[in-house]
Amino acid sequence: MSEQPRPGLPPALRAVLRFDERGLIPAIVQDARTGQVLMLAYMNETALAETLRTRETHFWSRSRQTLWHKGATSGNTQRVVDLRVDCDGDTLLVLVEPQGPACHTGATSCFFRAWDGEGWRPLAFAPTDPER
Amino acid sequence: MSEQPRPGLPPALRAVLRFDERGLIPAIVQDARTGQVLMLAYMNETALAETLRTRETHFWSRSRQTLWHKGATSGNTQRVVDLRVDCDGDTLLVLVEPQGPACHTGATSCFFRAWDGEGWRPLAFAPTDPER
Repeated sequence: MSEQPRPGLPPALRAVLRFDERGLIPAIVQDARTGQVLMLAYMNETALAETLRTRETHFWSRSRQTLWHKGATSGNTQRVVDLRVDCDGDTLLVLVEPQGPACHTGATSCFFRAWDGEGWRPLAFAPTDPER
Repeated sequence: MSEQPRPGLPPALRAVLRFDERGLIPAIVQDARTGQVLMLAYMNETALAETLRTRETHFWSRSRQTLWHKGATSGNTQRVVDLRVDCDGDTLLVLVEPQGPACHTGATSCFFRAWDGEGWRPLAFAPTDPER
């Protein structure tokens, strides 16, 4: 399978980013309309360049060691509305309009459990079968 | 300086968490009232135990290699309202009531710059001198 040539990052964008020793930067994904934090995943330079080019989130899958276009299989893509960076350039905040649930369990957000002092309590939007 | 004995994490809480090879887990901090994402920092087991015990955020400072009680010096503490975990247990979401700006620059949120296609544009709440 031939690798498509991919555009690099604009130098002005790249200049403030600090990728870690694995070449990754954590990206918080937040729903631009509701403010709900949906997930956290990691981008390398290619994933970020593809995110900018397509206006849909792309990540680096650490478990599969491959570029991952969020929603390519499920249809649950995330349209990028805004890209922000933190003060020290080592975390991204991506505001999106999600086309479906962010979580592979079917939950709107991957953060569907809260600690109640004794156990992890499922929130209202938690999946019925979180193990799937 | 003698180290105070610190409580460990409740086993039921610890069971679902996956700390990385450095013993750290990323923690997204979100304003519980406004929904604004304030910062991302890292917790080790001690930082998380102290966060639970005091109901104020504690982190592990990777640059200073020390436990960091957010706001201990500045007064800008963060009262913890809710603690959530994501589907695969490797990211925390901490909902807080902030007692002041989250960012050392004085900005409400560390994410005070947005990419406009040509450069990083300061947002309305950006500090006047982000280098300080």
